[in-house]
Amino acid sequence: MSQVRVHNFSISLDGFGTGEGQSLEEPFGHAGQRLHEWFFGTRTFRRMHGEGGGGGVGVDDALAGTWATDIGAEIMGRNKFGPQRGPWTDEDWQGWWGDNPPFHTPVFVLTHHPRPSLTMKGGTTFHFVDASPADALAMAREAANGLDVRIGGGPSVVRDFLAADLIDHLHVSIVPIVLGRGVRLWDGLEGLEQRFTTECVTTPSGVTHLTFTRRGPHSSPRP
Amino acid sequence: MSQVRVHNFSISLDGFGTGEGQSLEEPFGHAGQRLHEWFFGTRTFRRMHGEGGGGGVGVDDALAGTWATDIGAEIMGRNKFGPQRGPWTDEDWQGWWGDNPPFHTPVFVLTHHPRPSLTMKGGTTFHFVDASPADALAMAREAANGLDVRIGGGPSVVRDFLAADLIDHLHVSIVPIVLGRGVRLWDGLEGLEQRFTTECVTTPSGVTHLTFTRRGPHSSPRP
Repeated sequence: MSQVRVHNFSISLDGFGTGEGQSLEEPFGHAGQRLHEWFFGTRTFRRMHGEGGGGGVGVDDALAGTWATDIGAEIMGRNKFGPQRGPWTDEDWQGWWGDNPPFHTPVFVLTHHPRPSLTMKGGTTFHFVDASPADALAMAREAANGLDVRIGGGPSVVRDFLAADLIDHLHVSIVPIVLGRGVRLWDGLEGLEQRFTTECVTTPSGVTHLTFTRRGPHSSPRP
Repeated sequence: MSQVRVHNFSISLDGFGTGEGQSLEEPFGHAGQRLHEWFFGTRTFRRMHGEGGGGGVGVDDALAGTWATDIGAEIMGRNKFGPQRGPWTDEDWQGWWGDNPPFHTPVFVLTHHPRPSLTMKGGTTFHFVDASPADALAMAREAANGLDVRIGGGPSVVRDFLAADLIDHLHVSIVPIVLGRGVRLWDGLEGLEQRFTTECVTTPSGVTHLTFTRRGPHSSPRP
Protein backbone atom coordinates (compact mmCIF):
# COMPACT_ATOMS: atom_id res chain seq x y z
CA MET A 1 0.00 0.00 0.00
CA SER A 2 1.16 3.53 -0.66
CA GLN A 3 2.63 5.39 2.29
CA VAL A 4 1.50 8.54 4.03
CA ARG A 5 4.37 10.93 4.66
CA VAL A 6 5.17 14.23 6.34
CA HIS A 7 8.34 16.09 5.31
CA ASN A 8 10.28 19.17 6.40
CA PHE A 9 7.85 19.91 9.18
CA SER A 10 9.65 22.49 11.31
CA ILE A 11 8.91 23.06 14.98
CA SER A 12 10.43 25.11 17.77
CA LEU A 13 11.99 23.59 20.90
CA ASP A 14 8.66 24.08 22.63
CA GLY A 15 6.90 22.17 19.86
CA PHE A 16 5.13 24.94 17.95
CA GLY A 17 4.72 24.29 14.22
CA THR A 18 3.49 27.80 13.58
CA GLY A 19 3.32 31.02 15.56
CA GLU A 20 0.37 33.09 16.67
CA GLY A 21 -1.38 35.64 14.48
CA GLN A 22 -1.30 34.31 10.92
CA SER A 23 -1.92 37.02 8.31
CA LEU A 24 -1.42 37.66 4.63
CA GLU A 25 1.96 39.18 5.43
CA GLU A 26 2.98 36.55 7.98
CA PRO A 27 1.85 33.03 7.02
CA PHE A 28 3.55 31.66 10.17
CA GLY A 29 2.43 34.48 12.46
CA HIS A 30 4.94 35.83 14.96
CA ALA A 31 7.32 32.96 14.09
CA GLY A 32 8.09 34.85 10.88
CA GLN A 33 10.65 32.93 8.84
CA ARG A 34 12.54 31.58 11.83
CA LEU A 35 11.22 28.01 11.61
CA HIS A 36 12.25 27.63 7.97
CA GLU A 37 15.55 29.46 7.57
CA TRP A 38 17.39 26.13 7.38
CA PHE A 39 15.11 25.13 4.49
CA PHE A 40 15.40 28.38 2.52
CA GLY A 41 19.13 27.77 2.23
CA THR A 42 18.76 24.44 0.45
CA ARG A 43 18.91 23.81 -3.29
CA THR A 44 15.64 21.89 -2.90
CA PHE A 45 13.83 25.00 -1.71
CA ARG A 46 15.30 27.20 -4.45
CA ARG A 47 14.23 24.72 -7.12
CA MET A 48 10.74 24.35 -5.62
CA HIS A 49 10.22 28.05 -5.97
CA GLY A 50 11.84 28.53 -9.34
CA GLU A 51 14.84 30.41 -8.02
CA GLY A 52 17.18 28.53 -10.32
CA GLY A 53 20.61 27.35 -9.18
CA GLY A 54 22.45 27.86 -5.95
CA GLY A 55 21.56 26.72 -2.48
CA GLY A 56 23.29 24.21 -0.24
CA VAL A 57 23.54 20.53 -1.12
CA GLY A 58 24.54 19.28 2.34
CA VAL A 59 22.61 17.18 4.83
CA ASP A 60 19.72 19.65 5.20
CA ASP A 61 19.22 19.57 1.44
CA ALA A 62 19.47 15.78 1.26
CA LEU A 63 16.67 15.45 3.81
CA ALA A 64 14.58 18.27 2.36
CA GLY A 65 14.89 16.79 -1.12
CA THR A 66 13.03 13.60 -0.27
CA TRP A 67 9.77 15.52 0.07
CA ALA A 68 8.62 15.05 -3.54
CA THR A 69 9.89 11.55 -4.31
CA ASP A 70 7.01 9.20 -5.20
CA ILE A 71 4.37 11.64 -3.97
CA GLY A 72 1.11 11.53 -5.92
CA ALA A 73 -1.10 13.85 -3.85
CA GLU A 74 -1.01 16.19 -0.86
CA ILE A 75 -3.47 16.89 1.92
CA MET A 76 -3.21 20.25 3.68
CA GLY A 77 -5.23 22.24 6.16
CA ARG A 78 -7.02 25.37 5.11
CA ASN A 79 -4.64 27.53 7.17
CA LYS A 80 -1.75 26.29 5.07
CA PHE A 81 -3.70 27.32 1.96
CA GLY A 82 -4.50 30.82 3.18
CA PRO A 83 -5.09 33.19 6.10
CA GLN A 84 -8.88 33.42 5.65
CA ARG A 85 -11.28 31.93 8.20
CA GLY A 86 -14.94 30.95 7.92
CA PRO A 87 -17.00 31.16 4.68
CA TRP A 88 -15.06 32.31 1.62
CA THR A 89 -15.84 35.95 0.93
CA ASP A 90 -13.53 36.02 -2.06
CA GLU A 91 -12.76 32.97 -4.18
CA ASP A 92 -9.99 34.79 -6.02
CA TRP A 93 -7.48 33.59 -3.43
CA GLN A 94 -5.40 30.84 -5.03
CA GLY A 95 -2.89 30.15 -2.24
CA TRP A 96 0.47 31.70 -1.33
CA TRP A 97 2.42 30.13 -4.19
CA GLY A 98 1.58 32.08 -7.36
CA ASP A 99 0.17 30.53 -10.53
CA ASN A 100 2.59 27.57 -10.58
CA PRO A 101 2.58 26.08 -7.06
CA PRO A 102 5.39 23.70 -6.10
CA PHE A 103 3.15 20.67 -5.55
CA HIS A 104 2.53 19.49 -9.15
CA THR A 105 -0.09 16.95 -7.96
CA PRO A 106 -3.67 17.05 -6.75
CA VAL A 107 -3.85 18.83 -3.38
CA PHE A 108 -6.79 18.27 -1.01
CA VAL A 109 -7.48 21.28 1.19
CA LEU A 110 -9.43 20.39 4.32
CA THR A 111 -12.11 22.99 5.00
CA HIS A 112 -15.62 23.20 6.35
CA HIS A 113 -16.33 25.58 3.46
CA PRO A 114 -15.88 23.77 0.14
CA ARG A 115 -15.54 25.75 -3.10
CA PRO A 116 -14.89 24.72 -6.71
CA SER A 117 -11.59 23.05 -7.52
CA LEU A 118 -8.75 25.22 -8.79
CA THR A 119 -6.55 24.02 -11.61
CA MET A 120 -3.19 25.74 -11.60
CA LYS A 121 -0.17 25.60 -13.90
CA GLY A 122 2.30 22.75 -13.56
CA GLY A 123 -0.09 19.98 -12.54
CA THR A 124 -1.34 21.31 -9.21
CA THR A 125 -5.12 21.13 -8.67
CA PHE A 126 -6.58 22.26 -5.36
CA HIS A 127 -9.67 20.34 -4.24
CA PHE A 128 -11.59 21.72 -1.25
CA VAL A 129 -13.10 19.00 0.90
CA ASP A 130 -14.97 18.83 4.19
CA ALA A 131 -13.83 15.38 5.30
CA SER A 132 -12.36 13.38 8.17
CA PRO A 133 -8.67 12.48 7.97
CA ALA A 134 -9.54 8.92 6.91
CA ASP A 135 -11.98 10.03 4.21
CA ALA A 136 -9.64 12.70 2.89
CA LEU A 137 -6.88 10.11 2.75
CA ALA A 138 -9.07 7.73 0.76
CA MET A 139 -9.68 10.49 -1.80
CA ALA A 140 -6.01 11.45 -1.93
CA ARG A 141 -4.92 7.84 -2.31
CA GLU A 142 -7.22 7.38 -5.27
CA ALA A 143 -5.91 10.58 -6.85
CA ALA A 144 -2.31 9.54 -6.16
CA ASN A 145 -2.76 6.49 -8.35
CA GLY A 146 -0.52 4.17 -6.34
CA LEU A 147 2.00 6.79 -5.28
CA ASP A 148 2.41 8.11 -1.75
CA VAL A 149 0.37 10.84 -0.09
CA ARG A 150 2.01 13.75 1.67
CA ILE A 151 0.37 15.43 4.65
CA GLY A 152 1.51 18.99 4.18
CA GLY A 153 0.47 20.59 7.47
CA GLY A 154 -0.19 22.80 9.36
CA PRO A 155 0.44 21.39 12.81
CA SER A 156 -3.17 20.62 13.71
CA VAL A 157 -3.62 18.61 10.50
CA VAL A 158 -0.43 16.62 11.08
CA ARG A 159 -1.49 16.04 14.67
CA ASP A 160 -4.96 14.86 13.61
CA PHE A 161 -3.47 12.36 11.15
CA LEU A 162 -0.99 11.12 13.76
CA ALA A 163 -3.77 10.74 16.32
CA ALA A 164 -5.78 8.71 13.79
CA ASP A 165 -2.67 6.54 13.21
CA LEU A 166 -2.61 7.34 9.51
CA ILE A 167 1.05 8.43 9.16
CA ASP A 168 3.79 6.04 8.03
CA HIS A 169 6.73 8.45 7.91
CA LEU A 170 7.19 11.73 9.77
CA HIS A 171 10.14 14.05 9.28
CA VAL A 172 10.27 16.84 11.86
CA SER A 173 12.97 19.52 11.99
CA ILE A 174 13.57 20.96 15.44
CA VAL A 175 14.82 24.55 15.33
CA PRO A 176 16.56 25.76 18.52
CA ILE A 177 14.23 28.66 19.30
CA VAL A 178 11.51 29.05 21.92
CA LEU A 179 8.38 30.40 20.21
CA GLY A 180 6.18 30.54 23.30
CA ARG A 181 2.89 30.76 21.38
CA GLY A 182 1.19 29.23 18.38
CA VAL A 183 -0.04 25.76 17.45
CA ARG A 184 1.70 22.78 19.00
CA LEU A 185 2.46 19.57 17.11
CA TRP A 186 2.75 17.01 19.92
CA ASP A 187 -0.36 17.72 22.00
CA GLY A 188 -2.50 14.66 22.66
CA LEU A 189 0.07 12.24 21.21
CA GLU A 190 1.42 10.64 24.40
CA GLY A 191 3.39 7.49 23.62
CA LEU A 192 3.53 8.22 19.88
CA GLU A 193 7.09 6.88 19.67
CA GLN A 194 5.91 3.38 20.57
CA ARG A 195 4.43 2.93 17.09
CA PHE A 196 7.56 4.16 15.30
CA THR A 197 11.27 3.68 14.92
CA THR A 198 12.97 7.03 15.46
CA GLU A 199 16.19 8.44 14.04
CA CYS A 200 17.81 11.77 14.76
CA VAL A 201 20.59 13.87 13.29
CA THR A 202 21.79 17.38 13.98
CA THR A 203 23.21 19.25 11.01
CA PRO A 204 25.68 22.14 10.99
CA SER A 205 22.78 24.58 10.52
CA GLY A 206 21.87 23.78 14.14
CA VAL A 207 18.64 22.05 13.19
CA THR A 208 17.89 18.54 14.46
CA HIS A 209 16.07 16.34 11.98
CA LEU A 210 13.98 13.62 13.51
CA THR A 211 12.29 10.84 11.56
CA PHE A 212 9.53 8.57 12.79
CA THR A 213 9.07 5.46 10.63
CA ARG A 214 6.11 3.28 11.38
CA ARG A 215 6.76 -0.21 12.72
CA GLY A 216 4.80 -3.03 11.18
CA PRO A 217 3.04 -3.79 7.92
CA HIS A 218 2.35 -0.22 6.77
CA SER A 219 6.02 0.51 6.60
CA SER A 220 6.80 -2.31 4.20
CA PRO A 221 7.84 -1.29 0.69
CA ARG A 222 5.07 -0.80 -1.83
CA PRO A 223 4.53 -3.82 -4.08
CA MET B 1 32.05 35.96 38.54
CA SER B 2 31.19 32.33 39.07
CA GLN B 3 28.75 30.82 36.57
CA VAL B 4 25.32 29.32 37.09
CA ARG B 5 24.92 26.04 35.23
CA VAL B 6 22.35 23.37 34.43
CA HIS B 7 23.53 19.94 33.30
CA ASN B 8 22.03 16.71 32.02
CA PHE B 9 18.53 18.10 32.15
CA SER B 10 16.46 15.63 30.15
CA ILE B 11 13.19 16.52 28.46
CA SER B 12 10.80 14.78 26.10
CA LEU B 13 10.07 16.03 22.57
CA ASP B 14 7.06 17.82 23.96
CA GLY B 15 9.24 19.56 26.52
CA PHE B 16 8.35 17.76 29.75
CA GLY B 17 11.18 17.52 32.28
CA THR B 18 9.22 15.17 34.48
CA GLY B 19 6.04 13.15 34.17
CA GLU B 20 2.80 13.33 36.09
CA GLY B 21 2.22 11.61 39.42
CA GLN B 22 5.52 11.73 41.32
CA SER B 23 5.68 9.18 44.14
CA LEU B 24 8.22 7.44 46.33
CA GLU B 25 8.38 4.64 43.78
CA GLU B 26 8.41 6.89 40.72
CA PRO B 27 10.42 10.08 41.25
CA PHE B 28 9.65 11.11 37.64
CA GLY B 29 6.01 10.01 37.70
CA HIS B 30 4.66 8.26 34.62
CA ALA B 31 7.89 9.10 32.74
CA GLY B 32 9.55 6.33 34.76
CA GLN B 33 13.21 6.02 33.74
CA ARG B 34 12.63 6.91 30.09
CA LEU B 35 14.06 10.41 30.26
CA HIS B 36 17.33 9.24 31.77
CA GLU B 37 18.17 5.93 30.14
CA TRP B 38 20.89 7.59 28.07
CA PHE B 39 22.46 8.84 31.32
CA PHE B 40 22.29 5.54 33.23
CA GLY B 41 24.51 4.01 30.57
CA THR B 42 27.37 6.43 31.12
CA ARG B 43 30.46 5.91 33.27
CA THR B 44 29.69 9.27 34.88
CA PHE B 45 26.37 8.01 36.22
CA ARG B 46 27.87 4.76 37.49
CA ARG B 47 30.59 6.62 39.36
CA MET B 48 28.12 9.13 40.80
CA HIS B 49 26.17 6.31 42.35
CA GLY B 50 29.10 4.18 43.49
CA GLU B 51 28.53 1.46 40.97
CA GLY B 52 32.25 1.18 40.29
CA GLY B 53 33.60 0.62 36.79
CA GLY B 54 31.84 0.06 33.50
CA GLY B 55 29.57 2.35 31.59
CA GLY B 56 30.06 4.05 28.27
CA VAL B 57 32.74 6.66 27.70
CA GLY B 58 31.36 8.07 24.44
CA VAL B 59 29.81 11.43 23.66
CA ASP B 60 26.93 11.05 26.13
CA ASP B 61 29.44 10.39 28.89
CA ALA B 62 31.67 13.28 27.87
CA LEU B 63 28.75 15.68 28.13
CA ALA B 64 27.35 14.13 31.29
CA GLY B 65 30.76 14.24 32.95
CA THR B 66 30.99 18.02 32.91
CA TRP B 67 28.25 18.29 35.51
CA ALA B 68 30.58 18.31 38.57
CA THR B 69 33.55 20.29 37.24
CA ASP B 70 34.12 23.46 39.27
CA ILE B 71 30.74 23.21 41.00
CA GLY B 72 30.71 24.52 44.59
CA ALA B 73 26.99 24.35 45.42
CA GLU B 74 23.66 23.17 44.02
CA ILE B 75 20.16 24.63 44.19
CA MET B 76 17.25 22.22 43.74
CA GLY B 77 13.51 22.30 44.08
CA ARG B 78 11.77 20.47 46.85
CA ASN B 79 10.25 17.99 44.38
CA LYS B 80 13.75 16.94 43.34
CA PHE B 81 14.53 16.31 47.02
CA GLY B 82 11.45 14.22 47.71
CA PRO B 83 7.84 13.38 46.87
CA GLN B 84 6.30 15.08 49.93
CA ARG B 85 4.17 18.19 49.61
CA GLY B 86 3.21 20.83 52.18
CA PRO B 87 4.48 20.92 55.79
CA TRP B 88 6.96 18.18 56.69
CA THR B 89 5.19 15.46 58.63
CA ASP B 90 8.37 13.41 58.92
CA GLU B 91 11.82 14.92 58.96
CA ASP B 92 13.45 11.51 58.63
CA TRP B 93 13.36 11.83 54.84
CA GLN B 94 16.92 12.53 53.66
CA GLY B 95 16.42 12.50 49.89
CA TRP B 96 16.49 9.72 47.30
CA TRP B 97 20.25 9.21 47.32
CA GLY B 98 21.13 7.24 50.48
CA ASP B 99 23.55 8.42 53.16
CA ASN B 100 26.26 9.52 50.69
CA PRO B 101 24.53 11.66 48.03
CA PRO B 102 26.37 12.35 44.77
CA PHE B 103 26.55 16.13 45.24
CA HIS B 104 29.47 16.49 47.70
CA THR B 105 28.77 20.22 48.16
CA PRO B 106 26.21 22.35 49.98
CA VAL B 107 22.77 21.87 48.39
CA PHE B 108 20.05 24.50 48.82
CA VAL B 109 16.55 22.99 48.68
CA LEU B 110 13.88 25.56 47.81
CA THR B 111 10.81 25.03 49.96
CA HIS B 112 8.12 27.07 51.66
CA HIS B 113 8.60 24.78 54.66
CA PRO B 114 12.14 25.14 56.02
CA ARG B 115 13.58 22.50 58.37
CA PRO B 116 17.01 22.04 59.99
CA SER B 117 19.97 21.46 57.71
CA LEU B 118 21.04 17.86 57.07
CA THR B 119 24.70 16.95 56.98
CA MET B 120 25.32 13.78 55.00
CA LYS B 121 28.41 11.70 54.32
CA GLY B 122 30.80 12.80 51.58
CA GLY B 123 30.44 16.55 51.91
CA THR B 124 26.78 17.02 51.00
CA THR B 125 24.78 19.29 53.31
CA PHE B 126 21.14 20.02 52.53
CA HIS B 127 19.94 23.49 53.51
CA PHE B 128 16.19 24.17 53.31
CA VAL B 129 15.40 27.73 52.30
CA ASP B 130 12.27 29.70 51.48
CA ALA B 131 13.82 32.19 49.05
CA SER B 132 13.48 33.76 45.61
CA PRO B 133 15.79 32.51 42.85
CA ALA B 134 18.03 35.57 43.25
CA ASP B 135 18.26 35.25 47.03
CA ALA B 136 18.87 31.51 46.89
CA LEU B 137 21.60 32.12 44.32
CA ALA B 138 23.28 34.69 46.59
CA MET B 139 23.38 32.09 49.38
CA ALA B 140 24.63 29.37 47.08
CA ARG B 141 27.32 31.62 45.60
CA GLU B 142 28.61 32.43 49.05
CA ALA B 143 28.67 28.73 49.97
CA ALA B 144 30.37 27.86 46.67
CA ASN B 145 33.35 30.01 47.60
CA GLY B 146 34.13 31.24 44.10
CA LEU B 147 33.16 28.05 42.30
CA ASP B 148 30.11 27.69 40.04
CA VAL B 149 26.55 26.98 41.16
CA ARG B 150 24.49 24.21 39.60
CA ILE B 151 20.73 24.49 39.28
CA GLY B 152 19.71 20.88 39.70
CA GLY B 153 16.02 20.99 38.72
CA GLY B 154 13.23 20.06 38.53
CA PRO B 155 11.77 21.76 35.50
CA SER B 156 9.89 24.52 37.31
CA VAL B 157 13.04 25.54 39.19
CA VAL B 158 15.14 25.62 36.01
CA ARG B 159 12.37 27.58 34.30
CA ASP B 160 12.18 30.10 37.16
CA PHE B 161 15.95 30.70 37.04
CA LEU B 162 15.85 31.08 33.25
CA ALA B 163 12.95 33.52 33.49
CA ALA B 164 14.92 35.55 36.04
CA ASP B 165 17.88 35.53 33.63
CA LEU B 166 20.15 33.88 36.19
CA ILE B 167 21.50 30.99 34.08
CA ASP B 168 24.82 31.18 32.21
CA HIS B 169 24.97 27.65 30.80
CA LEU B 170 22.12 25.24 30.13
CA HIS B 171 22.58 21.67 28.92
CA VAL B 172 19.33 20.03 27.88
CA SER B 173 19.06 16.48 26.56
CA ILE B 174 16.09 15.89 24.27
CA VAL B 175 14.84 12.31 24.39
CA PRO B 176 12.72 11.22 21.38
CA ILE B 177 9.58 10.32 23.31
CA VAL B 178 6.23 12.10 23.66
CA LEU B 179 5.33 12.22 27.37
CA GLY B 180 2.04 14.06 26.97
CA ARG B 181 1.80 15.13 30.64
CA GLY B 182 3.97 16.46 33.40
CA VAL B 183 5.91 19.68 33.99
CA ARG B 184 7.17 21.58 30.95
CA LEU B 185 10.57 23.29 30.81
CA TRP B 186 10.03 25.94 28.12
CA ASP B 187 6.75 27.55 29.18
CA GLY B 188 6.92 31.32 29.51
CA LEU B 189 10.38 31.55 27.96
CA GLU B 190 9.56 32.95 24.52
CA GLY B 191 12.67 34.26 22.79
CA LEU B 192 15.04 32.64 25.31
CA GLU B 193 17.53 31.80 22.54
CA GLN B 194 18.18 35.49 21.90
CA ARG B 195 20.23 35.72 25.08
CA PHE B 196 22.31 32.62 24.30
CA THR B 197 24.52 30.95 21.77
CA THR B 198 23.14 27.48 21.09
CA GLU B 199 24.88 24.28 20.05
CA CYS B 200 23.33 20.93 19.27
CA VAL B 201 24.56 17.38 18.79
CA THR B 202 22.75 14.08 18.39
CA THR B 203 24.55 11.04 19.79
CA PRO B 204 24.19 7.39 18.77
CA SER B 205 21.91 6.84 21.77
CA GLY B 206 19.32 8.90 19.90
CA VAL B 207 19.44 11.76 22.37
CA THR B 208 20.04 15.33 21.18
CA HIS B 209 22.14 17.42 23.51
CA LEU B 210 21.53 21.12 23.32
CA THR B 211 23.62 23.74 25.07
CA PHE B 212 22.69 27.35 25.68
CA THR B 213 25.66 29.55 26.58
CA ARG B 214 24.93 33.08 27.66
CA ARG B 215 26.10 35.90 25.42
CA GLY B 216 27.83 38.81 27.07
CA PRO B 217 29.75 39.50 30.25
CA HIS B 218 28.42 36.68 32.42
CA SER B 219 29.83 34.08 30.09
CA SER B 220 33.40 35.35 30.37
CA PRO B 221 35.86 33.06 32.15
CA ARG B 222 36.15 33.44 35.87
CA PRO B 223 39.14 35.58 36.88
